[in-house]
Amino acid sequence: MKSEEQFLQLIDTHFPHEHPFLKLGRGDDCAILAGDRDYCVTSDIFLEDAHFRHEYFTAADIGYKALAVNISDIAGMGAKPVAFTMDLMAPADLDDEFWDDFFKSMAILARQNDMVLAGGDLSRADKLGVSITAMGVAGGSGTFLTRGNVSPGDVLFTVGEIGLARAGFMTLEALKDKAREAFPAAVAAHLRPKPKVMVGTLLNAAGAKSLMDVSDGLARDLPRLLGPGLGADVTLAAESLNGNVLAFALGVGTDPVEEAFLGGEDYALLGAAAEDTMDKVSTVPGLTIIGTVTDTPGLVVNGKPFTASGFDHFDQ
Amino acid sequence: MKSEEQFLQLIDTHFPHEHPFLKLGRGDDCAILAGDRDYCVTSDIFLEDAHFRHEYFTAADIGYKALAVNISDIAGMGAKPVAFTMDLMAPADLDDEFWDDFFKSMAILARQNDMVLAGGDLSRADKLGVSITAMGVAGGSGTFLTRGNVSPGDVLFTVGEIGLARAGFMTLEALKDKAREAFPAAVAAHLRPKPKVMVGTLLNAAGAKSLMDVSDGLARDLPRLLGPGLGADVTLAAESLNGNVLAFALGVGTDPVEEAFLGGEDYALLGAAAEDTMDKVSTVPGLTIIGTVTDTPGLVVNGKPFTASGFDHFDQ
Repeated sequence: MKSEEQFLQLIDTHFPHEHPFLKLGRGDDCAILAGDRDYCVTSDIFLEDAHFRHEYFTAADIGYKALAVNISDIAGMGAKPVAFTMDLMAPADLDDEFWDDFFKSMAILARQNDMVLAGGDLSRADKLGVSITAMGVAGGSGTFLTRGNVSPGDVLFTVGEIGLARAGFMTLEALKDKAREAFPAAVAAHLRPKPKVMVGTLLNAAGAKSLMDVSDGLARDLPRLLGPGLGADVTLAAESLNGNVLAFALGVGTDPVEEAFLGGEDYALLGAAAEDTMDKVSTVPGLTIIGTVTDTPGLVVNGKPFTASGFDHFDQ
Repeated sequence: MKSEEQFLQLIDTHFPHEHPFLKLGRGDDCAILAGDRDYCVTSDIFLEDAHFRHEYFTAADIGYKALAVNISDIAGMGAKPVAFTMDLMAPADLDDEFWDDFFKSMAILARQNDMVLAGGDLSRADKLGVSITAMGVAGGSGTFLTRGNVSPGDVLFTVGEIGLARAGFMTLEALKDKAREAFPAAVAAHLRPKPKVMVGTLLNAAGAKSLMDVSDGLARDLPRLLGPGLGADVTLAAESLNGNVLAFALGVGTDPVEEAFLGGEDYALLGAAAEDTMDKVSTVPGLTIIGTVTDTPGLVVNGKPFTASGFDHFDQ
């Protein structure tokens, strides 16, 4: 891909300009998003060798995941994404086919989530980087589900696989392409995490009190949901984990529950609800109750204190 | 700077969490921006060796300009910035003093423009990169000034120096630090462009029809303001240009008007107004009338067709 013009044309073939929340689309100094409602806003970087490797991520995987991680943050607010902007750092050596696959895959995910690309910027760079800012709106109630806002006795739940993406990441790093055969579900969870927008809005409507997306693993993210002064008593049965997590833990000789709890890039949802709302909340598809909020800071997992911290993309 | 925690702490010391348009600040999956009004949204990358060099940009210059170029896009809508998100790609070898200067300088510019940092992301990278998405709101009238919307006979105007930042860039590239003495105004225009928010909102209130910020030079940006099917008859007197532009053109043996018209990174404002509103529009401080809109596509500058195109950050 040689010129900015060619990029913009390719983007125009994949991403429509029209959206109920977009009053003015790409091509001016700014896009204009229609008012009347509060917007939630999130921003995530997806960078070569920090967040993905070309070695096992295809162009389509990269385009998909760069947007998916942003959508997941909006799902974590119990909200619905509507628009995004994309700053693209594009190495000169990636060919037209790469970009076509990259944009096509991102555009499909955007369409599935009814999101419009509202603008962005383009620059040459040595490594591929995608910086996306996504905007969302709350559903009927107008409420966003934040972290905190929990009390002792509240029920903790997750929706989505715990530890599976970490097993995918570890096996892809170790086995490269061979990992696809040995750990297909884990590999898919790492390359193509599924943001849980529908589930997030259902949890919001059902009256959950608190919600977040699990991107750094339960061990690090659960204390963020609880906030200061509170703890959690968690039960995570090995049988509840995906077979790929069990197989991976067996292979490397570690405890599958510890692996899963450390996790990382799960993009599952983690939330809390008052016990008397669980009749309604627990009907949300895929929901798993993992424990209760306690008034003692710290995490207890299967009866034992859990002190290790999850995985930090940055501190390495 | 070693850990994500340290970065977040430093950011918290420089950037406040409170703002009338911010309902929920940093620290959750998303920030929440208050509704009721339309938002304009823009996104720009500021990347080492593509947009700046450490050789002659200080940490404070980089922090300043990364945000300034986004504010300029909002000024180009006749709007007022309110919030921004920042994705930061941070090399490991930049020390604490660098980051302190970087954030401090950005925070001063944010405060001057009454903007709040609403969120962002952080990643290790080989080169320093700053990807910012900024949001703004329209003033009293609720109107944003877009490109286009002009007719033959409309008066074209600029606010801000034309060609000065290009002279700064060229002399910094050629002379490095020596450029500061020889071309101080030009160097300042390149390192610290001043976004024209106040002027943009005044032009909006005064009834200008069309507005944009000049980031790629008048030669490329003026046709974007006009849209298809229209042209412009422009008068750009050498005497109206900054002395540093004249000195630079003299030094390299080129035509100062051609240099200025090619420009690049001026971050001036370019706009159009109906002739019968010029009584009011022309009272805006710093406004220079540069010509009129014609019904013949193409640009005529000082009576001669101007065909060269401005400077493209990307196509190189």
